[in-house]
Amino acid sequence: MSSTWGEKVKLSIFGESHGAAIGVTIDGLPAGELIDFDEIAFQMSRRAPGNDPTSTSRKELDIPEILSGIFGNSTNGAPLCAIIRNNDTHSENYEQFSRIPRPGHADYTSFIRYKGHNDYHGGGHFSGRLTAPMVFAGAVCRQILSRHGVEIGAHLLSVAEVSDESFNEVNIDGNALKELTRRPFPVLLPQTEEHMRGTIEKAKNAGDSVGAVIECAVTGLPAGIGDPIFGGVENKLSSIIFGIPAVKGLEFGAGFSVASMRGSENNDPFLFKDGCVKTLTNRHGGILGGITSGMPIIFRAAFKPTPSIFLVQQSVDLETSEPASLQIHGRHDPCVAVRAVPVVEALTAVCIIDLYMGAFGNDIR
Amino acid sequence: MSSTWGEKVKLSIFGESHGAAIGVTIDGLPAGELIDFDEIAFQMSRRAPGNDPTSTSRKELDIPEILSGIFGNSTNGAPLCAIIRNNDTHSENYEQFSRIPRPGHADYTSFIRYKGHNDYHGGGHFSGRLTAPMVFAGAVCRQILSRHGVEIGAHLLSVAEVSDESFNEVNIDGNALKELTRRPFPVLLPQTEEHMRGTIEKAKNAGDSVGAVIECAVTGLPAGIGDPIFGGVENKLSSIIFGIPAVKGLEFGAGFSVASMRGSENNDPFLFKDGCVKTLTNRHGGILGGITSGMPIIFRAAFKPTPSIFLVQQSVDLETSEPASLQIHGRHDPCVAVRAVPVVEALTAVCIIDLYMGAFGNDIR
Amino acid sequence: MSSTWGEKVKLSIFGESHGAAIGVTIDGLPAGELIDFDEIAFQMSRRAPGNDPTSTSRKELDIPEILSGIFGNSTNGAPLCAIIRNNDTHSENYEQFSRIPRPGHADYTSFIRYKGHNDYHGGGHFSGRLTAPMVFAGAVCRQILSRHGVEIGAHLLSVAEVSDESFNEVNIDGNALKELTRRPFPVLLPQTEEHMRGTIEKAKNAGDSVGAVIECAVTGLPAGIGDPIFGGVENKLSSIIFGIPAVKGLEFGAGFSVASMRGSENNDPFLFKDGCVKTLTNRHGGILGGITSGMPIIFRAAFKPTPSIFLVQQSVDLETSEPASLQIHGRHDPCVAVRAVPVVEALTAVCIIDLYMGAFGNDIR
Amino acid sequence: MSSTWGEKVKLSIFGESHGAAIGVTIDGLPAGELIDFDEIAFQMSRRAPGNDPTSTSRKELDIPEILSGIFGNSTNGAPLCAIIRNNDTHSENYEQFSRIPRPGHADYTSFIRYKGHNDYHGGGHFSGRLTAPMVFAGAVCRQILSRHGVEIGAHLLSVAEVSDESFNEVNIDGNALKELTRRPFPVLLPQTEEHMRGTIEKAKNAGDSVGAVIECAVTGLPAGIGDPIFGGVENKLSSIIFGIPAVKGLEFGAGFSVASMRGSENNDPFLFKDGCVKTLTNRHGGILGGITSGMPIIFRAAFKPTPSIFLVQQSVDLETSEPASLQIHGRHDPCVAVRAVPVVEALTAVCIIDLYMGAFGNDIR
Repeated sequence: MSSTWGEKVKLSIFGESHGAAIGVTIDGLPAGELIDFDEIAFQMSRRAPGNDPTSTSRKELDIPEILSGIFGNSTNGAPLCAIIRNNDTHSENYEQFSRIPRPGHADYTSFIRYKGHNDYHGGGHFSGRLTAPMVFAGAVCRQILSRHGVEIGAHLLSVAEVSDESFNEVNIDGNALKELTRRPFPVLLPQTEEHMRGTIEKAKNAGDSVGAVIECAVTGLPAGIGDPIFGGVENKLSSIIFGIPAVKGLEFGAGFSVASMRGSENNDPFLFKDGCVKTLTNRHGGILGGITSGMPIIFRAAFKPTPSIFLVQQSVDLETSEPASLQIHGRHDPCVAVRAVPVVEALTAVCIIDLYMGAFGNDIR
Repeated sequence: MSSTWGEKVKLSIFGESHGAAIGVTIDGLPAGELIDFDEIAFQMSRRAPGNDPTSTSRKELDIPEILSGIFGNSTNGAPLCAIIRNNDTHSENYEQFSRIPRPGHADYTSFIRYKGHNDYHGGGHFSGRLTAPMVFAGAVCRQILSRHGVEIGAHLLSVAEVSDESFNEVNIDGNALKELTRRPFPVLLPQTEEHMRGTIEKAKNAGDSVGAVIECAVTGLPAGIGDPIFGGVENKLSSIIFGIPAVKGLEFGAGFSVASMRGSENNDPFLFKDGCVKTLTNRHGGILGGITSGMPIIFRAAFKPTPSIFLVQQSVDLETSEPASLQIHGRHDPCVAVRAVPVVEALTAVCIIDLYMGAFGNDIR
Repeated sequence: MSSTWGEKVKLSIFGESHGAAIGVTIDGLPAGELIDFDEIAFQMSRRAPGNDPTSTSRKELDIPEILSGIFGNSTNGAPLCAIIRNNDTHSENYEQFSRIPRPGHADYTSFIRYKGHNDYHGGGHFSGRLTAPMVFAGAVCRQILSRHGVEIGAHLLSVAEVSDESFNEVNIDGNALKELTRRPFPVLLPQTEEHMRGTIEKAKNAGDSVGAVIECAVTGLPAGIGDPIFGGVENKLSSIIFGIPAVKGLEFGAGFSVASMRGSENNDPFLFKDGCVKTLTNRHGGILGGITSGMPIIFRAAFKPTPSIFLVQQSVDLETSEPASLQIHGRHDPCVAVRAVPVVEALTAVCIIDLYMGAFGNDIR
Repeated sequence: MSSTWGEKVKLSIFGESHGAAIGVTIDGLPAGELIDFDEIAFQMSRRAPGNDPTSTSRKELDIPEILSGIFGNSTNGAPLCAIIRNNDTHSENYEQFSRIPRPGHADYTSFIRYKGHNDYHGGGHFSGRLTAPMVFAGAVCRQILSRHGVEIGAHLLSVAEVSDESFNEVNIDGNALKELTRRPFPVLLPQTEEHMRGTIEKAKNAGDSVGAVIECAVTGLPAGIGDPIFGGVENKLSSIIFGIPAVKGLEFGAGFSVASMRGSENNDPFLFKDGCVKTLTNRHGGILGGITSGMPIIFRAAFKPTPSIFLVQQSVDLETSEPASLQIHGRHDPCVAVRAVPVVEALTAVCIIDLYMGAFGNDIR
């Protein structure tokens, strides 16, 4: 593992927030898949900061340069590498954090892990900026999956105390998912947007930040994908989704609510629908025994509030071994989850294509 | 992945519920570690059914036979394989499930995955019985970790609506964890036991089952263990813990509750304590940026109610493509989570020793 | 890696020469493949000692017990584990080697690697006896491959100075390969047998041993299997074949002789034959750029002479740090390569099925 | 595997010969290692074409741009990515090979593998040009290893019928290895150079090419590195070295010559030397049972003659299914092995650092 993930399709993420460039290599994609570069640009714009009032004012043009893996406009089977140059970085803001670690960030743990040699500017390799190449990779994979009937979409299920409605667990339309990904603010109920924006604004004005839950669905996957025990879809998805900074929880189907259910409520009765085996409810979130059931995959990820807040915080000076206080300046999202919606979708796409090709081989069929 | 897990220490789980034997191979253990076989037997007895009124009356003596990897009473560095013979199986109970899949089980998905060739007796390779070799593997790994100051303990945080108290997030004593694992019913507050037992009994009498949440802690791990992005401790732990049948959710530290926190509440201030960098609170559950902080690791897993209930359920006949009803007989736990507590601890031990040896090399130092 | 190998099909080998049992788990086999157990027994008898005058007189009945992965007589998709009990071990012969390492064996390196805790009896986990579970695994895999037109066969190309003829590089018949595996002494030219036996006998009578080269071929593989750079068929085959004790060299197609060829001799012209693209010669051994060409795969492995010889040898006493001489007694093959022929075929089968399923997915098609 | 290699240190190679850029990501390097960029440039110049009369006249400036993983002049623990822009490409030379595959190249097999979507210009991802990022990666790893006493050096052991002397198997000096890597033409005996150059020149003038054997040695590695069976040093080295285009054979220590030795010649007697356990001879090439013995590692790789020759060759037209002849023009090395010497050293360095960190953990000690 480490910054590399996958079996059949391998992702390798590199770069630091204030280094020369960040990027990704995707090794093992099927050959001959036509790539829509405008769609990639669109997906990246969903994650890019500065496009929405809730996000940081930092500009990241995030124009990926594709170095390999594309011939004509199609994948050629060789590893696809894309890089994104870093610009508009304000490294001077970070000098103090080399010795006074920011609470809630990886400054301290990476200092220990790398014996003080980590690049602390903007969080270095642990920065949320590293989600840009993830979105790139997902934008490639989801196009291929979509062509084969698999759609992926996510929304903000809750931000602080404001909740959106949940996906209909048994009946999620692929086209509706696609349409969801086109919305500037990803919620199912239009009225939720204003409330969530208000909540985020309030926290921002207080120099603070808020957490959120993102709910994601995958439709169109056939039954029978996944492997037993440690090779289950839940194992694989969690091993990649926890790679998004700020994720602290993950649940599938009914998730934590199963703990207060009885078996008779949680078991999903089987039935035939349009000649196919389906389930009446979908507490299992499309996965039984680690293997897809043909029902939509549904999972939720908990995102912690942005650790970069503008209030004075208590920390330590690693050089003098004295207590120290610190105050963060600069430009930071008051709710990282808003821009994380396309990131969750993107890594889900990478995971699903890896599972798919594991099941069906070198070619998507 | 699949039934194999790990990088530095590799686990390979095999067996079906009603086959000749189940077992495990652990490849990559440090050599020269003295093994206490009584301790292994004790750990296995914690998971074994029939030892507690809440569990199934099915007897599994679960006496592991060690085939390799031990020389004298110490690990010899070669793969350690242990097998457990299956006895007391009532295969005749399962014939109908080859065509009428049980709701909430892997019968249908494994039927599709293996084109009808899966062993459906007792759930085959997807059975909860496969957690016995997991406990064996964990019993070996936790002994080694304990000798190096790392302790692991878990408890039932909730069963249906009954809750135990949570671990004290900043102050968990290794010896207290050890003591916790000696209790016949694993809860922190003594009074919780009776209530939980009552709730389980009630469900059982109704022919039904209940879900639960298990909370697990690891103490004594140094800061700086884990890798960035996909190699984080959360990624690794989730990739193994979702290998336990019935787990549908996983959260670290404050988990899903971070979604309704502000950054100022969720960020854990750093401070010096006994000359070491610690945090005042431990919302981060001992992991920041995927890397251990030196604070206790704390996580919670949601277990669904036992899918084997005794009420009539709706399903389908895969042969005739007609609806079908089914009723499960036999012996089943009304709450799988009770016996899953040592399983969660066990796989945590396997994961931690893998991370530990990844960080420190072939020898535990 | 370590004692575990593979991506789509994972092999896990365990056991020590004088431990309770040795065995193997094969995880990821396609489901529903009928297994011929007599064929497994036959393959294991080819490797078993005591069946041929050239081999050790040590009896290993080598009857594998299958613990999992078979339902009815077919693979059920779950990991297939088989164990072989160790009997007829003479451990008392080995006490001295715990401190006086045998030249040419792993006694010294495993002593260092495992800090003196390795099981030195009979070489422990490094013993040639561990090739028995390899043959078992191969016997399962090759049956499945054979049903899909892929045949694997090997022969002794040379023993000391005695040479057999080479495979015809462009024209190897699958049935002839199958027939080759039925011969008690695996050579292509009948007259070679007597000369090789004589050479081996002479070395044996001198208390010495001889080396050999084994040549192996695979027919019936379609073009297009394998991955670029590190995922090539040569990389994969070598990563498994060097797992056979005593292999010190490996070459594909024209192998080391390419070094003295010109490009015009080494390049294989393409042509059409029976409507398929073939090559006129097969210097490339069926692999170009790491990927199968549709021509037979041909490779050769160099086996060192059995390190257990009966002459007095110089070594060191690890306890006293003094020079020491040692003399090996007991029962040892004068030429390990004779019984290694089915082992080479077996690991080749495991490798090919892993590549095959990587290319085509969960099912052999 | 595929274009990704490694466990503790992971290499990911990307790029096509005539694409925008080629490059490499090295994930898992120890942090805080000072990097000498001039040394990297020097190593890359050894492989670069146009520096020697025996090589192609194609100019590759091969100036790597480091995008990540370096902070100050030291590794920061994050993945190190470097790219090399492609210039001076003559793509028009290659159009015909999209339908008429060149003998000895991967044109045909990659056409099948990628269903005609492969980038055939200059061999695409299968080009020898991809060895440039390998040399870059090795140049980083060998600096780190050298600081810890491990040296790696290789030479042309033979080119066609001209032979250099072999390494002294028991007595290789680290400084001499270092000095060897400074020679413009890597041979041990000065007089060999002229003969080899003459042989290469003769082939070149005939429009043909020649093969070679490269011998490589590693000194300074402690005993006890490597894992049993499939995790041995031979398995690991072969799995990476066969990633160099044109390698068709690999042998360790005495290699194929063991086949004609007796055990009494091949077994290396143990002895004490300067208080350490050594062997009198080193037929085992520093590896016994897959584990390092403390003696120099020695291996040899057979390189086939450059497949790009200028004579008319027979092939097929994949579009018309008719025989076709082809003639290659352009600029090609008459003996790829000359520039492959630093490539062999480089991948050896990557392999050794991976093994080293597997044995000792995150930090080189």
